Amino acid sequence: MPNRPTKKAEATLDSMRKVFSIPENEDSTLMRIEREISQNLLGFLRDHIVAGEMEPAEIERDFKNINIPEEPMFVHEQAKFLMDKVVSQSVHTAAPSFIGHMTSSMPYFMLPLAKIMIALNQNTVKIETSKAFTPLESQVVGMLHKLVYHRDEAYYDKWTHDRRHALGVFCSGGTIANITALWVARNKLLAPKGDFKSVFEHGLAAGLTAHGLNGLAILVSRRGHYSLKKAADLLGIGRANLIAIETDEHNKIIPTKLEARIKELQSRNVGILAVVGVAGTTETGNVDPLEEVANICESHNIHFHVDGAWGAPTLFSDRHRHLLKGIERADSVTIDAHKQLYVPMGAGLCLFRSETALDAIETNAQYIIRRGSRDIGKHTLEGSRPGMAMLVHSGLRILGRKGYELLIDVGIGKAAQFARMIQNTPDFELTTEPELNILTYRYVPQSLRQQLKTMPSDEKSKVNDLLSELTVNIQKTQRDRGQTFVSRTTFEIASHNDQALTVFRVVLANPLTTRQVFIDVLEEQRTIADDEMAKMNFAAELKKIID
Amino acid sequence: MPNRPTKKAEATLDSMRKVFSIPENEDSTLMRIEREISQNLLGFLRDHIVAGEMEPAEIERDFKNINIPEEPMFVHEQAKFLMDKVVSQSVHTAAPSFIGHMTSSMPYFMLPLAKIMIALNQNTVKIETSKAFTPLESQVVGMLHKLVYHRDEAYYDKWTHDRRHALGVFCSGGTIANITALWVARNKLLAPKGDFKSVFEHGLAAGLTAHGLNGLAILVSRRGHYSLKKAADLLGIGRANLIAIETDEHNKIIPTKLEARIKELQSRNVGILAVVGVAGTTETGNVDPLEEVANICESHNIHFHVDGAWGAPTLFSDRHRHLLKGIERADSVTIDAHKQLYVPMGAGLCLFRSETALDAIETNAQYIIRRGSRDIGKHTLEGSRPGMAMLVHSGLRILGRKGYELLIDVGIGKAAQFARMIQNTPDFELTTEPELNILTYRYVPQSLRQQLKTMPSDEKSKVNDLLSELTVNIQKTQRDRGQTFVSRTTFEIASHNDQALTVFRVVLANPLTTRQVFIDVLEEQRTIADDEMAKMNFAAELKKIID
Repeated sequence: MPNRPTKKAEATLDSMRKVFSIPENEDSTLMRIEREISQNLLGFLRDHIVAGEMEPAEIERDFKNINIPEEPMFVHEQAKFLMDKVVSQSVHTAAPSFIGHMTSSMPYFMLPLAKIMIALNQNTVKIETSKAFTPLESQVVGMLHKLVYHRDEAYYDKWTHDRRHALGVFCSGGTIANITALWVARNKLLAPKGDFKSVFEHGLAAGLTAHGLNGLAILVSRRGHYSLKKAADLLGIGRANLIAIETDEHNKIIPTKLEARIKELQSRNVGILAVVGVAGTTETGNVDPLEEVANICESHNIHFHVDGAWGAPTLFSDRHRHLLKGIERADSVTIDAHKQLYVPMGAGLCLFRSETALDAIETNAQYIIRRGSRDIGKHTLEGSRPGMAMLVHSGLRILGRKGYELLIDVGIGKAAQFARMIQNTPDFELTTEPELNILTYRYVPQSLRQQLKTMPSDEKSKVNDLLSELTVNIQKTQRDRGQTFVSRTTFEIASHNDQALTVFRVVLANPLTTRQVFIDVLEEQRTIADDEMAKMNFAAELKKIID
Repeated sequence: MPNRPTKKAEATLDSMRKVFSIPENEDSTLMRIEREISQNLLGFLRDHIVAGEMEPAEIERDFKNINIPEEPMFVHEQAKFLMDKVVSQSVHTAAPSFIGHMTSSMPYFMLPLAKIMIALNQNTVKIETSKAFTPLESQVVGMLHKLVYHRDEAYYDKWTHDRRHALGVFCSGGTIANITALWVARNKLLAPKGDFKSVFEHGLAAGLTAHGLNGLAILVSRRGHYSLKKAADLLGIGRANLIAIETDEHNKIIPTKLEARIKELQSRNVGILAVVGVAGTTETGNVDPLEEVANICESHNIHFHVDGAWGAPTLFSDRHRHLLKGIERADSVTIDAHKQLYVPMGAGLCLFRSETALDAIETNAQYIIRRGSRDIGKHTLEGSRPGMAMLVHSGLRILGRKGYELLIDVGIGKAAQFARMIQNTPDFELTTEPELNILTYRYVPQSLRQQLKTMPSDEKSKVNDLLSELTVNIQKTQRDRGQTFVSRTTFEIASHNDQALTVFRVVLANPLTTRQVFIDVLEEQRTIADDEMAKMNFAAELKKIID
């Protein structure tokens, strides 16, 4: 028996009470880890995450045993397991060179604040377990509502803390936010008619019959987020009725195509559940012409939702806010807090222009979320929820609008800088010009770039497929090496006659990312490319196509 | 200008980089708070949460300003605000005397572990941001799957980490878990037929038409959780088609009534989407006769879902496991991890008996969750998600099965103890006998209790309504005082001829709760009752009814 350096949760009531009431020993493994994190988070991550080399299948081996152990285990044993097997094989998402996904670094103060939030363990579904967190969450909803809709003080005085209505809801992320918006839109569209009370009460099929509709459709540019597919499935619309509208060379929805499609659907008696405008497409960071989309929605009386999961915080920036002009006319707007509001994973919001919109999905129960109560869970898709709003509240106040503006401006500036660097590099091709802080590009051997320009289109198309294969291989190897990281995606590239190409994708939200990172990323890709081309027999494959 | 005791996030890139890379000063307000929490969580909560007295409307005043400040604020200013206005007015959910809701205390090690999780900020939607957390989450799903379904080692070897399928999903809580289960059930029921490919593809109305159905129904006892209403709405079924089946005197579904209703619906050509069995009703903690429900579902080929959000961890207990017999025949099972697995708010799971069930809702995209990838986000309703699985993993290993068994056994034992105490107290009436660790009761003045027994039924019914009003008043006052806490709910009480009564509701999951708490709760209620009866003119109102 070891000398009990930390507690072991023995199965007696007395020792269990200790596990619930006596803190870890100051010198325990767990507390030492915690102190190391407090003193130097980035150092901790850098020191303990073992970059790369280990294959997923190899990592899996440490997570094979699905037997719940009968006997308790020392805390320090589990702490050691977590350090050796989990922390070491985690992804350093806060690294300045991790520029492939939307998870980046956080302001330092978020970590101790998150600990306070977890220590309080409030449940915001009902006021009885979130006495202060309920008004705090409503305040944050109000703050972001004003950022988008800038109604006057009297409006917020009246509605921010109203017991019956809500200006928006917090949720675990953008997917739930988008689903909430479309859920509201569906229930509002299929309004009471004759014996039909609501979708809410009688279901979708009865609503379609009552309204004499042949179906419902959701329209979004072909760059819309995959969460809309889930929404279309979940809400009973069907993914075939999630209509992808063509985009222009800047990945923006083409308003004339949108309007033509609306008319065509209406002529077939299909109800338009919503048009979704994108403010920051996930793959390319572009913003739809929201003003024009708003005009179309208004003239056809269609619910206009803006998916601003990524891009909505651009509203903080005096310089770039104009890109989102028209968002204030949206009926609903999604914002992800764990993206460009820089809070830890698990926080999003959906805001509604009208304070009565969320009435369409209100749920009540007897023991909580009673009608007319202060329980904000009445209007949420989720039930029990943590107090993430506290972290958003703190971010907004500690950084201020100007702090977020700086983060936005710097990110957009850096994307432009990286884009220029790629354009000035003979063996890389910029495939989408950044509008916000996201760009895509690919590696093309210098000699081939010249040839591609004059190649017959069928040959060019085959070469492009070969290059896509190369891109996949480079990205995988770079990811597995764990030094620098970009992601990859596949979509139709305007400058390549709309051929679907696989390209590298870069997201620039970490203020610690420097120009040197861009140089390192390209340099590493160039080196990997040589290896991968050899492995693929690239030259021989190319010869087959061109000859 | 203050002497900069902590950082202020000035809007320059250099200072912003510091905010993201330099830890809080050891002596900063925020770090002092954090240390206090680490050293003595319960002491921190006890010392800083100001019990009661402040009205919600009064608290709201501190959260009225919805203007995002232009300028940054010192971290210590926000820390002070949070301590003075948020922490002080929070609810001490970990208090041994907070026995009214399902949020209780946590093992101490959860707090530092949560900090590690947040520091790593992994996003489990895709392996590129959760290299170790992905297999870890799958392992935890496997562990709990085995707890419920106890398949053999070969099964788990084959399926736990399979790239195409999943044995279950993590999510933010029981509501999403229940919705996920019913989403799967709906899509499976409306299988491909003729031109109809799937609900997923063509929507609900087309599915009903293809299958010649007049609608869909979900059946659950009238004690089912309100999240099923949301599911019925969201999935397009309609809340009117969420059929509440009668319960017996122990709040358990009556199998003969269930089967009769199934036959009646089938005769009207209504498809049965699912039957939901409850393992631990939210209001009374009762368990449906799962074996009998399983038999019915099997004979009619209906998806059998068990909502074990509260009660599924009873499976840890050798003594009480038998109450859930039949759960292993469920097609899907909901478990909430932030309830009786004792992790912080925001973690639930839905498990599926068949490894192919979740195929019915698989979503793919180009840049992540590609088909055949290791990205577990393919099968989740949510998108980006935090690594809460790490905390469940740690709980299961550190406490072990025997640790959780103890927690379950102690809670059930305590509920029985409190029930006996109430039964032996002349001015309190036990309204539901506890089966697990939840019970309900009410206050009835001693003299009235005798009278009620012989009262004509119409008078008795009116007196009961008056007593319900009294219960509401007592519960609200007790809550506002903030010393002890029970919740309240309203439902049909078998021993009162199924009249809907408002009663106190007690949930006993905190191992720190002692017998003294029960004495204190009753004593406080008795004192409050006197006051409230005076305020209500109880005696005069009673006289009006009885005379």
